[in-house]
Amino acid sequence: MSAIRLPYLLFVGDERNDSNAKTAFGVRQWRPEACVAQWNLPGGTVDIGLPRMTPAEAVAQGARSLLIGIAPVGGGIAPHWVAPICEAIEAGLDVVSGMHMRLGSVEAIRDTAARCGRTLHDVRHSEVRFPVGTGVRRSGKRLLTVGTDCALGKKYTALALTRAFQAAGHAATFRATGQTGILISGAGVAIDAVVADFIAGAAEWLSPANAPDHWDIIEGQGSLLHPSYAGVSLGLLHGSQPDAMVLCHDPSRLHIEDHPGFPIPPLEEVMDLHLRHARRVNPASRFVGIALNTSRLSPDAAAALLEDTGRRHGLPAIDPLRSDLAPVVRLATA
Amino acid sequence: MSAIRLPYLLFVGDERNDSNAKTAFGVRQWRPEACVAQWNLPGGTVDIGLPRMTPAEAVAQGARSLLIGIAPVGGGIAPHWVAPICEAIEAGLDVVSGMHMRLGSVEAIRDTAARCGRTLHDVRHSEVRFPVGTGVRRSGKRLLTVGTDCALGKKYTALALTRAFQAAGHAATFRATGQTGILISGAGVAIDAVVADFIAGAAEWLSPANAPDHWDIIEGQGSLLHPSYAGVSLGLLHGSQPDAMVLCHDPSRLHIEDHPGFPIPPLEEVMDLHLRHARRVNPASRFVGIALNTSRLSPDAAAALLEDTGRRHGLPAIDPLRSDLAPVVRLATA
Repeated sequence: MSAIRLPYLLFVGDERNDSNAKTAFGVRQWRPEACVAQWNLPGGTVDIGLPRMTPAEAVAQGARSLLIGIAPVGGGIAPHWVAPICEAIEAGLDVVSGMHMRLGSVEAIRDTAARCGRTLHDVRHSEVRFPVGTGVRRSGKRLLTVGTDCALGKKYTALALTRAFQAAGHAATFRATGQTGILISGAGVAIDAVVADFIAGAAEWLSPANAPDHWDIIEGQGSLLHPSYAGVSLGLLHGSQPDAMVLCHDPSRLHIEDHPGFPIPPLEEVMDLHLRHARRVNPASRFVGIALNTSRLSPDAAAALLEDTGRRHGLPAIDPLRSDLAPVVRLATA
Repeated sequence: MSAIRLPYLLFVGDERNDSNAKTAFGVRQWRPEACVAQWNLPGGTVDIGLPRMTPAEAVAQGARSLLIGIAPVGGGIAPHWVAPICEAIEAGLDVVSGMHMRLGSVEAIRDTAARCGRTLHDVRHSEVRFPVGTGVRRSGKRLLTVGTDCALGKKYTALALTRAFQAAGHAATFRATGQTGILISGAGVAIDAVVADFIAGAAEWLSPANAPDHWDIIEGQGSLLHPSYAGVSLGLLHGSQPDAMVLCHDPSRLHIEDHPGFPIPPLEEVMDLHLRHARRVNPASRFVGIALNTSRLSPDAAAALLEDTGRRHGLPAIDPLRSDLAPVVRLATA
């Protein structure tokens, strides 16, 4: 990641759905000093909360790289993004992408970058040859955020918990497992881009043996309940051997997003399913908190829901962006 | 697969462990007419039950391709195989491999094949761009073999059941999910070589919508209980939406092979775990049989164990190579 030139112009294209722009929102939230401006194409309505600039304007303000801030399902580069990406390269920007499809696989992008002497970064693709997972226990402590669905707070919870562990005096490292987490933290593995046979092995590689009291706070991916991505989630769970898990949930979501036939079961069932798998690799694995995304609720309603959820499940219930996370840290390290 | 020239010389190298040669054994068992001879290197003791020949001798007997019949963990090409593989190419054979590592990634193999005008086949790698899984139900019936571990009979059970369904007058298609199954049936997807995000999508692609009474008999991979490969197994389970499952088990195996810290739980627990995941994608999913690998038992001991297992679980218990499979077919199609 050291080769990426900062700061970024965040490309959000003609996207109208905030949840497809989670890369842009995440980098803006957790690495604001690395973000100069956002670039919307005509028709695009996503608002990251940054000034809107063209590539030429952003370069004049110091931007050095165009970050592809949108992540459509399937991870492809839309044909109508090619000309704008080339325009950014011509203006002097490198390009950074977390998509499955490599930037250099598009001839116009590859040729423009070569002609202008600019660099293309595909952070979703690792050059590491991951081993097959072993299941062998390793030293150090690990916390994994897991979820009832995609895109509801697993990364934010892990980032916020990493700060809370550190604030409480514990050695803790955020371990990114997705492109946005990698762009925020500067390291990690896009676990969903690994060849299927090596998911658990890549997860073991990502959080190697460490000091006995060091905590890796590992960003979860997907959901065991998700009909598209559960395999990724289970491999990551096995390879992470979590001592502690935090269940992330959006109380407004009654079924898997875009999959109305897949209801979210009661949280106790979801936790039980995770524990059955986690205890294969770590018999002491347990839940230490429930993280609710309460962004759609008033402060009072959020507080009431968190208190009720915590009491019902006998666990600290928190919103990573609103709550004091110390109770989770205390329970994990007790 | 039509471009593969038959028959095969089966390369088993210096392997001494039969279970690492399951590709050679599987092709010999299920496609005997395609196998001319086996080739052991000095020190190798695996016996496929075929005459032993060098490449030149096998070519004289009609062999047209060298099949790499061993599958070491991790799927690599051992350095000391390179010279023998090149010798086979020089003798006039194409080379067919199911390994993760592509034959052409080894310079000497690539150059020798180019010079001799021979073809290299890497059947584990698909040229298909698989979609993300959707979870949408599709027509047709599906049976998936699942297992308590790797390498204990999921493929043999699926192949034998396909014949049993057909013998009972049902339209049925074997769906291969691993390299050996692909080499036997001539089609399929090596599901463990798919990028993790697309496991379920590849499984959906593999068994597309079909006539309402048509059965896809899908070869399982890995095990939900396996610390290395469970992610592959769960993605395949979700994408297969099985109406019926058969649990494959080796009664002599008390823990995951090579992983003594991972005991095999009671079969009812294993079936319950599978049903919890399967019913997310198909609420009617159920078990219709238990397949035991009784190859290490006498006929009497095997019969007694099968009867006891069947009675205990209230399901037909069969050995795919010894039993009448009609009870499984009847229960599945009842």
